[in-house]
Amino acid sequence: MKPKCVVVDSSQSPYSLLKPVSVDSVKLKDGFWAPRIKTLIEVTLPTQYELLEETGRIDNFRRTAGKMETEFKGLFFNDSDVYKWVEAASYALAYDGDSRIERIVNSVITDIVDAQDPDGYLNTYFTFERRAQRWTNLRDMHELYCAGHLIQAAVAHYRATGRRTLLDAGVKLADHILSIFAPGKRQGTPGHPEIEMALVELYRTTRRSAFLDLAKSFIDNRGKGLIGGSLYHIDHKPFRELDEIVGHAVRSVYLNCGAADVYMETGDGSLLRALERLWQNMVNCKMYVTGGLGSRYEGEAFGENYELPNRRAYAETCAAVANVMWNWRMLLVTGKAEYADIMELALYNGALAGIGLDGETYFYVNPLVDRGLHRRSRWFDCACCPPNIARLIASISGYFYSTSRDGIWIHIYATSEASIEFNGGLVKMTQNTDYPWSGHVEITVYPEKLSEFSIFLRIPGWSLKTATALNGKPLDFNLKPPQYLEIKRVWEKGDVISMDLDMRVNVLSSHPYVLENSCRVALKRGPLVYCVEQTDNPDFDVWDLMLSPDSSFNIMQRPDVLNGICTIQCDGFAVERILTSLYFRLEEDTVKLKPVKFTAIPYYAWANREPGPMIVWIPTFNTNLIKQYPL
Amino acid sequence: MKPKCVVVDSSQSPYSLLKPVSVDSVKLKDGFWAPRIKTLIEVTLPTQYELLEETGRIDNFRRTAGKMETEFKGLFFNDSDVYKWVEAASYALAYDGDSRIERIVNSVITDIVDAQDPDGYLNTYFTFERRAQRWTNLRDMHELYCAGHLIQAAVAHYRATGRRTLLDAGVKLADHILSIFAPGKRQGTPGHPEIEMALVELYRTTRRSAFLDLAKSFIDNRGKGLIGGSLYHIDHKPFRELDEIVGHAVRSVYLNCGAADVYMETGDGSLLRALERLWQNMVNCKMYVTGGLGSRYEGEAFGENYELPNRRAYAETCAAVANVMWNWRMLLVTGKAEYADIMELALYNGALAGIGLDGETYFYVNPLVDRGLHRRSRWFDCACCPPNIARLIASISGYFYSTSRDGIWIHIYATSEASIEFNGGLVKMTQNTDYPWSGHVEITVYPEKLSEFSIFLRIPGWSLKTATALNGKPLDFNLKPPQYLEIKRVWEKGDVISMDLDMRVNVLSSHPYVLENSCRVALKRGPLVYCVEQTDNPDFDVWDLMLSPDSSFNIMQRPDVLNGICTIQCDGFAVERILTSLYFRLEEDTVKLKPVKFTAIPYYAWANREPGPMIVWIPTFNTNLIKQYPL
Repeated sequence: MKPKCVVVDSSQSPYSLLKPVSVDSVKLKDGFWAPRIKTLIEVTLPTQYELLEETGRIDNFRRTAGKMETEFKGLFFNDSDVYKWVEAASYALAYDGDSRIERIVNSVITDIVDAQDPDGYLNTYFTFERRAQRWTNLRDMHELYCAGHLIQAAVAHYRATGRRTLLDAGVKLADHILSIFAPGKRQGTPGHPEIEMALVELYRTTRRSAFLDLAKSFIDNRGKGLIGGSLYHIDHKPFRELDEIVGHAVRSVYLNCGAADVYMETGDGSLLRALERLWQNMVNCKMYVTGGLGSRYEGEAFGENYELPNRRAYAETCAAVANVMWNWRMLLVTGKAEYADIMELALYNGALAGIGLDGETYFYVNPLVDRGLHRRSRWFDCACCPPNIARLIASISGYFYSTSRDGIWIHIYATSEASIEFNGGLVKMTQNTDYPWSGHVEITVYPEKLSEFSIFLRIPGWSLKTATALNGKPLDFNLKPPQYLEIKRVWEKGDVISMDLDMRVNVLSSHPYVLENSCRVALKRGPLVYCVEQTDNPDFDVWDLMLSPDSSFNIMQRPDVLNGICTIQCDGFAVERILTSLYFRLEEDTVKLKPVKFTAIPYYAWANREPGPMIVWIPTFNTNLIKQYPL
Repeated sequence: MKPKCVVVDSSQSPYSLLKPVSVDSVKLKDGFWAPRIKTLIEVTLPTQYELLEETGRIDNFRRTAGKMETEFKGLFFNDSDVYKWVEAASYALAYDGDSRIERIVNSVITDIVDAQDPDGYLNTYFTFERRAQRWTNLRDMHELYCAGHLIQAAVAHYRATGRRTLLDAGVKLADHILSIFAPGKRQGTPGHPEIEMALVELYRTTRRSAFLDLAKSFIDNRGKGLIGGSLYHIDHKPFRELDEIVGHAVRSVYLNCGAADVYMETGDGSLLRALERLWQNMVNCKMYVTGGLGSRYEGEAFGENYELPNRRAYAETCAAVANVMWNWRMLLVTGKAEYADIMELALYNGALAGIGLDGETYFYVNPLVDRGLHRRSRWFDCACCPPNIARLIASISGYFYSTSRDGIWIHIYATSEASIEFNGGLVKMTQNTDYPWSGHVEITVYPEKLSEFSIFLRIPGWSLKTATALNGKPLDFNLKPPQYLEIKRVWEKGDVISMDLDMRVNVLSSHPYVLENSCRVALKRGPLVYCVEQTDNPDFDVWDLMLSPDSSFNIMQRPDVLNGICTIQCDGFAVERILTSLYFRLEEDTVKLKPVKFTAIPYYAWANREPGPMIVWIPTFNTNLIKQYPL
């Protein structure tokens, strides 16, 4: 039986409410994602491949296989970039089958499997002169991390193409790891989590429970001091005792992904409870308004609660990708719309900002305010982010739908056609919408045969008033979003669900302990966080902007700007400075306000034109407070 | 002739307006500095010495001298901590001569000089197995930095005691360095500046111009790529082309100190112009309100302009000490009161916060807001800060006065008796004041013989209205502070100058590009920046405090609190939170204001009682803006 190309295969997971729908069952026909997939295939994957070659990352495999004589090049974990690229390219093959990409993927896979030792070991850094150091430093040397990415690539390639070459290599490597770290043998846990989710996916693909047990043991072994006991490594406590999300942001959230995967298979409630605590802490105290994660450059780490600096935000692109991955798993487990909201937030903002509109420049770090110095690069020495955002975009259609025993769930809205297997039959669904620019969505349902089931329609938390109709007749419902609206009926071919999400501009403010956001607001419309960029506002420095709290917002469709966006136009004031010193007495006259109109663009689209200042959190008058204070 | 124990010996410097007055010419009798000197001698110096012993820092010298067999212990630049301690202890000997300290100093000096190679080399890290690596890595290995601290200690010990043992060792080491790096030989420059000012002081002490030339060449060699060309090392440009203060904050400001020292001797205007540009940039764009420097943990570095995060402020104690040192040199060169203001600011706030009231616990990093987690430590692996703040406090009386051709300059106010050599005679001066708690200062002048000269009285910039009188008769003057008020007359024994500085609480706000300080103010009274600490305000979390902009301030003398301080009491509001989520819509009712009274304490005194939140920048209503905005 040909495998299904799903992103997380919870189809047989006993503790997952939702079952995935494969990447290739959804044909994108929209103006938002479809062009990004096209760019991915035409630009992103080829240019990344060229850079993998140029930087010696693939030569490292050739060297290991004895095909060329050269030194190891680059960082000790560079193999993982190749694996992530293979994973991204595999998803692309699932729905496209672009022959150029396929040829490259096959050649890269050949180089990978040729580099594998007869005993299954595979890591191009630990060969020849460094062979003796294998598995001697789990904390720092990323061997398990690289192995995890190989396994994820192998599973993705198998699911996309049905070919077993890379999968066999992944199994062989996993068997080698089992020979050392299987429960009962040497205890270990990785300094950089990643392999946990990979092993669970390998278990799902092979049904060999040893892989699941190994994943579980890696989580169980945290907090035992095996890798030094640091907060940075999330090794300071047993996983099940964690109540605050800490440490290196990507490691921390990858670990949570792995724990969620283990939960789906084992139903270990202590894991789920820890995950829920960590999620609450993250969402209520440690997440940027963009879904970005990681407040500190040092350690690429979460900060303390409410420590969310904007200018020196780290918010690594990989961490936003990880945020999508974790929330996807939590959503699969629970079917709760809170997780879909955060997944969407991180996807459309924190993650998507990580790649330029050109498809070949990337942010590693994603500040929320800038003086025009922060620009995307074609590559990084530590190039984790480019192939990570690539694999997310490449697999995006796998996040659109799920099924449960009761019906079909819709998570992401975009004009598309889907063929969903449900209850032994096929249900075709088309979406027509300009989402995320418009909140109007029309879904037409074509069940292969007449049958009763539910359609679960995601109502995002940001939609304050939502109208829905079935075949033109308004649906009456009363739920507080985020929620899935369940519409249960005997579905007939051509049934149309329409929905109008509330696309008003939400003016967001922050908990006052986010010290940098005092008297500042962010504009959000639908799932998109906006920012004000200099190039749209030539008459004043955007750092001098203040928002009038009673402003109304004009939404302008601009197909000509930034590959097509809606801008927000609004009234505000530009501050004219009288004093320029750093500190002055409050009573001195320092500024004058000058009325201005300003234009905001989606945050994901910033830094795609000429450099200039950018700001997300705009100063305003705190009217709530002023009203209470008798001036 | 017995040398004079001065902090920077500009007495023969042709391009320095001011000449120093020695540490031991001023007898402190005040309630602020005198008890600190007592604590320094009784607690700080002995406990630091114990830690130098415990951590193997002095054993490293004994090992090098062949007196004991052991491994090198600690970090490769640990010698410098011993030298800085010797420098601090030497100043203490200058005015005290405590026999216990003297005995220890002598023994440490013996261990140091015994460790010196016959060729003059002295660095305990680069001995035995690492001997071959000497001078191979100027960028990273701090050999010139350690040498600089030895020379500074040697000069200080010689000036304090007249003994040449350590000075001879310093000269021998400097000669060794000359044998390698003298102009015309190998080009070099240190990764961590420090030796520049040391060599100029050695030149001043020995009058050997080779030392000055070497200092000058180290500055001239910056920006040539000799140490990699990084911004971090301030090697990205030639020194004379710098216009923005960047890089590792301590290195950057030490370099400026060295350049100022070279300027004093050479009159090279291109150095002074660069220093003035860097100072303007620092003071107008990159300095904390406490005089603290360094916005980033990564690189312990200056950030971009206006990048001054409060919670993750780095503001290393050493950087505030360096700020005092640099401004002292700029003041000596120019006699301009701006420099005295910043020197005072960094001294009473950023630097002094670095040592606990107990005299034996230290901050390395000095945040301006905290949740109660940041506490002082007895020591650090990288222990640069403890002996640095010790040497500053130990030499404080050397910063009180200067002389110029025209008269005597008074920089720091504290009850004290001074004997100042001027124009071939002695002028005794007593100060009577409760400064910094009170702005009333009485200075009585006792010239040995009747003579005409000026007394230059420092009027700080923060004193908005200043009254002065001579022998009870008000002086009429019109100057905009910061300025030195020149009082020229034929001084008679017992002439009394009285001065009343304006001690109103100044409510400071920041340039709006300091994003974190929007709608926030800091309270400053006299030279002291205040903070609000939880322990004084049990009824609300100090992070929930808002200041009423029309508040009046009550100053309370509290001899019982924190070794005697004035507190500020004031009206404000505590915010009661209705919503606790991280982000919410501005229009939601999220807070209620509750009137409260609150107490603020000097920033330098925080974290000396039970842990709890602390805040310097207090939210308020931006009335200037609100008045302009028609709500």
